[in-house]
This record gives sequence, C-alpha cells and structure tokens, in this order.
Amino acid sequence: MSDVNRVWRLRKRPVGEIGDEDLTLEQEVIPEPGANEFLVRVNYLSLDPTNRIWMSDMPQYMPPVDLDAPMRGIVCGTVLKSNHSGYPEGSVVSGLGTWADYQIGTPETLNPMGALEGVTTVDAFSTFAVVGPTAYFGLIDIGQPKAGETVVVSAAAGAVGSIVGQIAKIKGCRAVGLAGSPDKCTRLTDELGFDAAINYRTEDLPQALAAACPAGIDVYFDNVGGDILDACLELMNLGGRIPTCGLISRYNATEPVAGPYNYPMILMQRLRVEGFIVLDYTDRYPEAISALGQWMAEGRIKVRTEVVDGLENAVQTLRTLYTGANTGKLMIRVHAED
Amino acid sequence: MSDVNRVWRLRKRPVGEIGDEDLTLEQEVIPEPGANEFLVRVNYLSLDPTNRIWMSDMPQYMPPVDLDAPMRGIVCGTVLKSNHSGYPEGSVVSGLGTWADYQIGTPETLNPMGALEGVTTVDAFSTFAVVGPTAYFGLIDIGQPKAGETVVVSAAAGAVGSIVGQIAKIKGCRAVGLAGSPDKCTRLTDELGFDAAINYRTEDLPQALAAACPAGIDVYFDNVGGDILDACLELMNLGGRIPTCGLISRYNATEPVAGPYNYPMILMQRLRVEGFIVLDYTDRYPEAISALGQWMAEGRIKVRTEVVDGLENAVQTLRTLYTGANTGKLMIRVHAED
Repeated sequence: MSDVNRVWRLRKRPVGEIGDEDLTLEQEVIPEPGANEFLVRVNYLSLDPTNRIWMSDMPQYMPPVDLDAPMRGIVCGTVLKSNHSGYPEGSVVSGLGTWADYQIGTPETLNPMGALEGVTTVDAFSTFAVVGPTAYFGLIDIGQPKAGETVVVSAAAGAVGSIVGQIAKIKGCRAVGLAGSPDKCTRLTDELGFDAAINYRTEDLPQALAAACPAGIDVYFDNVGGDILDACLELMNLGGRIPTCGLISRYNATEPVAGPYNYPMILMQRLRVEGFIVLDYTDRYPEAISALGQWMAEGRIKVRTEVVDGLENAVQTLRTLYTGANTGKLMIRVHAED
Repeated sequence: MSDVNRVWRLRKRPVGEIGDEDLTLEQEVIPEPGANEFLVRVNYLSLDPTNRIWMSDMPQYMPPVDLDAPMRGIVCGTVLKSNHSGYPEGSVVSGLGTWADYQIGTPETLNPMGALEGVTTVDAFSTFAVVGPTAYFGLIDIGQPKAGETVVVSAAAGAVGSIVGQIAKIKGCRAVGLAGSPDKCTRLTDELGFDAAINYRTEDLPQALAAACPAGIDVYFDNVGGDILDACLELMNLGGRIPTCGLISRYNATEPVAGPYNYPMILMQRLRVEGFIVLDYTDRYPEAISALGQWMAEGRIKVRTEVVDGLENAVQTLRTLYTGANTGKLMIRVHAED
C-alpha cells in the first residue's frame, strides 16, 4: 500500500467539453476511518455519461459535486481497514465513491458485493452495478415491451443500449439500434442479434429509421435526446412509450437547447414519456441481477467491458463517452485486484 | 323545417390563424337518410381547440378533414327522420358530426343522449360530451393527484381547465390556474375555488408560479405547451405527472416550433408526460358523467357555457378560442331546441 492518495478534485464547472483545467489530480494523505467507517482501496472506477451532469450545476437528480471536492464516481474496491462489522477487511464493496486511490466508506454509500458463480468481480461490477439494472428496469418497467413490438434504442453500442436491445430480443420484440460507426452497427446485428442497425452519422436518419421500422416504433429507449429523439417521435405508434434514460446530446451544450420539435406527437399518439434513474430501483436490484445473470449464463446477453489502466487517465477516458469513441462499458482499473 | 341546408366546407388548410377564405358556407339540399341511417337537425355545435388540428394536415389522432368536405364538429341534435329503430324521430343525439344545419347520422358517429335529472340538454351536452370527461380522465387517470399535492392547470378559465381545477380541489389538492385576464383570474379564485390564479400575460411567469407553488408542482395539466410548459417543467417535483391534453400555443404556428427547453427535467425529476384523447375513454363515459353530475348537483363543480347564435358565426367564434377572448365552453346554437 502506497502512502499517497491521488484524488481528482473538481476545480471548475466545465463549459462544453470537459477541459484540462476543470479537474486536477492531487497527492493527498490516505484518510483514517472513524467509528463505523472503513477504508477502501478502489480497484475499478466506472465512467458513466452521468458524470458530466454531476460536474455541472444544471438541475439534476442529486446535488452536483461541490467545487474543490473530490469527483464523484461509482467504484468497486477492497476494504483495507474496518471499524464496521458488516464490512470485514478483505471484503469487496461497490457503490457511490470518489475518483481516488483510497477513500472512506460508509454503509450509506457502499454495499458488500456478493459473489456470483462463474462471474468475475470486474464483470459483475461492470454489468450489475449500474448499466444492467438501468437497461432492465428502463426497458421492462417503463417501456413495457410486448412480443411483436418494435423497440428502438439509441447509443445502442453503448453499455446500456447494447443490453436494452438484447433484452428486447429476449422479450420477442424487433430490436433496432442506432450507433455511430460501421463497426458498431456490424457488432449490433452480427454479434448481439439486433434486427437492424443504423449509423446515425452517415445515414439519412428519418428514412433509415422508417425502413428499419416498417410497423412503426412502440418503444423508443432514449439515451441521447436531440435529433434522434425527434426522428423517433415521428414514427411512434399509438400508445408508444419513451423511457428517458439519458440525454447525452445535451450534456456538453453551452446554450439552451430546444426540446423536440415533434413534441406534439406525445398528444397525437397518446405517448408516455417517462424519466427514470436506476438509483430509484436499488430495492429491486436482486431481481435484475438474477435475470441478467441467468441470461448471461445462457449466452443470451453479451457484455463488453473496456478497461483503461490508471486513475490518471480518468478525465481523458471519460471524454470519449461523449464523442462515441468507446464501445462497451468504460472502466478505469485503479488498482489490480488481489 | 327549411328546405336549404347550410354546410361549412373546408376549402384550404389554414396557415397560421384561420383565414376568411379557408372555409365557405354553402347552400345545399337536405340529404335523405338511407338504410339504417337517420336525418338530424343540429341544435348545438361545440367549438373546441381541436377543430384547428382537424383543419390542418399535421400528424394527428384522426384523419384530417378532407379539402372541400364538410367541416367536422361535435354536435347535438334532434332526429327528424329515421330508418333506424334505435334512433326514433324526436330523440336527441350527440357525437361526431359536421358544421351544418342538417346531416345524416349513423350509430357509428352519433349516440342517443340519455336525460339526466335536473340537467338541461344544453348543459349536459356542454359538460358531458367532451370537456367534462376530458378533465376527469386526464386529471384522475393520467395525473393521479393525491391529497395535499399541487395541481397546476393552464387555460384554467377554459372549459376543460376550469373543471380540472375544481376536481383537483375535490381531491384535496392545491389548485393553481393560469389564465389570460384579470377577470378570468378573479373568477378562478373567487367563484371556482382555485387557491391561486396567475395572469400569464402580465405577470413574470417563473416568479409568479414559484410564489403560487411553494411546495413545487406535482401535476401540471397541459392545455397549451410553449413557454408555460417550460415554466412548469422548471418547478416539477420528483415523480411529477404532466397529462398532455392540448398544445394550443402551437396550433396556429406557421414554422416548426421547438419543444420545451426544460425537457431534461423529465429525466432529472423522473416525470411522466403522457398524452391522451378523450375519445379513448368512450367506454368509461358513464363513470365520468356520474361523478361530474353528482359534483354539479352538490354545487362543487360550476360550469359556464357561452352560446353564440347562428351557424354563420362558427368560424369567427372559433377564432376567439385561440386568442383567449372566450370564457367557458363555447357553443354555436344552430337551431332552437323544440
């Protein structure tokens, strides 16, 4: 164990893309756990689109990260010292933490990670901590897909979107994915079983969507907002559902962004547009983990984790989420597992 | 009975406000009912915001009115000749008809109107044909208001909005109405029991809304869209609901209109935005009519009908709906009841 704790602190709220001076990596002392606390060494730091929201002061679902405070992130780590009987030394925990080598954990923010047969810690953390339950509850609870319906998902090659499309197939739906490169589109159809994939950067979106959805759209799982949302609204069927999971096209915006021009389709087609945050479903995580774990064991859901080494690379790696350069769940390996 | 049938025909799709040449009033012959049909003399023609949608070719929930066809409207009338045993001569019917003195009815479009004790035909038609069930199902089914919550309604002095606010009060909610004149605002608070009313034309909307909704907004019943929707989105509480009943601020638009700038609040506050059309609830009309009828008999819901005489005045009277000049349910008296 090193005696230095590297901590990313938020120094400025980014304007547009995250700038080089918005966060700084500091060398600090390793904190000591107090009563009922424990010291955690972070093994993996999850990088998620929502990180950009937390850096801003836009209205959001949790308080933003304070200026000069450690950056917030979803982490998985090993307990090194413990003053809490529920978190013995050597146990593995995950939950809301910070971008740092070491940090103090409490039962309010970090939970013990149970071992799942045949699943490595990194795969379990990658799929079950956030993205799997997000796809599961968003599609099944909010989207309520029925066999034979058409489900469209944006950012379909991303960590959440790829699982959404695969669950849609399991539920007997037609799955159509939007992604930003030919490679990603090929992966969707050839590897993940999507019925159709559209490269939204190069294809005529309204035309390609109409061709891929000859019976219209019943569920549009929205990760991005913007033009893609508008194009999907145009094709929504009567009584369609739009689970709203993310609006990544707006997160780097520096000026007010208009909502969808096709907003009246909500009225005309009696649509239900509903936002959700996976943190609202923590009580029901076991249901999602059990279903996803079984589908993964059966080979019906495939996940891809993209691991980048080094806490020092967190900022530059996070930026790739907003340019579409990554594929699969993005993660920083902060320390090798024991 | 005259031997001339005046019929309003749609000649051009209006661009912006309805123009003088968009509809023409023709003198035609009175049609003869065929097998299983009946001839109806229209007594009242309901004027509703949705009429403007039907004149356009924007995406909509029914086919638009064809060019050169009689204008569609919700009507109440008396059967004059009948070839259908369910519709005896002299019986009163209501439903989807046309802007005309006389028209052919079928069971697919017109239903017999049952008599309600102590309620005149015009009041029953005014409240129960469209606006009452719209307010009832939109607020109760889609909005799901709970006692103690805050319900905001736009176009609150209008036919639907005024009933929405009064039902909100019956359900134990705080009712806040938006209207476009001091007289309308006074009526909302002093006559209809709203807790607060805001003149959206003269007051600073975000500030006035925040003051009127100190605990935020739980249900925003949207009749208008536009800036008012944006201001309400800003104040929505976690898990809030937005029944989308109308978007009247856009109906006369001649260029694409942006959706709400605060669209991300749907995600951040996990809102449910849901469009509905009262025609989807025809099976459940008896439930709404029974509840509304009882509340009216108890004096807990007051309605106002604004009757204008003469089919020839239909177009110019309809225009007042989009300028906010009217108060209450707007209706043309085409023929005096017997």
